[in-house]
Amino acid sequence: MTEMTRTAVRVGDEMTPLSRTVTQEQINAYADASGDVNPIHVNEEFARMVGLPGTIAHGMLDLGILVDAIARWAGGSDRVASVGCRFSKPLLPGDTITCAGRVVDVDPATGLVTLEVQADSSRGDRVLNNGRATVRLPA
Amino acid sequence: MTEMTRTAVRVGDEMTPLSRTVTQEQINAYADASGDVNPIHVNEEFARMVGLPGTIAHGMLDLGILVDAIARWAGGSDRVASVGCRFSKPLLPGDTITCAGRVVDVDPATGLVTLEVQADSSRGDRVLNNGRATVRLPA
Repeated sequence: MTEMTRTAVRVGDEMTPLSRTVTQEQINAYADASGDVNPIHVNEEFARMVGLPGTIAHGMLDLGILVDAIARWAGGSDRVASVGCRFSKPLLPGDTITCAGRVVDVDPATGLVTLEVQADSSRGDRVLNNGRATVRLPA
Repeated sequence: MTEMTRTAVRVGDEMTPLSRTVTQEQINAYADASGDVNPIHVNEEFARMVGLPGTIAHGMLDLGILVDAIARWAGGSDRVASVGCRFSKPLLPGDTITCAGRVVDVDPATGLVTLEVQADSSRGDRVLNNGRATVRLPA
């Protein structure tokens, strides 16, 4: 793979999609690491009781995978300057999340590249939408 | 504390600030949970070699704390509809991060409340800036 630079990237370029299957074990690990131990994430019985189809992943876990996709495409997480998205649908354990994006602006002077990004689940839901990220690429 | 509702909240309201001291152990746990094991986060010697003052927290760990502050203020993480920010300065292990925000818009019809949010470190750096979040509050 060639080094990602501000001169190599063009408006319309597609980010390399990243797919990952999220397990309950990963959701539990994220709950421990983040301190967000809301039972909707870790207790199947409770999740069903409040009307969910089962436990759901933390929105921030989904967003972390999206940021990882952006970082890998850009050549390092230190290049991700900003990120934003809407948490539109839940991701369930066992689902595969696929993150993708497209370059919508390149500023060759600053190396700041803007992407529209999103994440979809293997059950056909758009998990993260209205996503936008900027990355800073070297010359 | 009274239940947070769309009728109780006003433009100009301040979010209850949340402070948390981030340890290397938490950064290691986040690295394991997220799979982002870049040595700048977990290897002090490597971090210094590339010109950093030491290991730094993942930007997504900082953002996770900011989202936690928003969720606590709003009355639950399921109420956080969207989030975005710029990763402006690194947070170092041992630093205390303080997350704050202010209501800038309330839509009483939909219950969608918009906040400007940010996070500062105990060394005086704005760690996350240009932050914006929306939460959906019950009637």
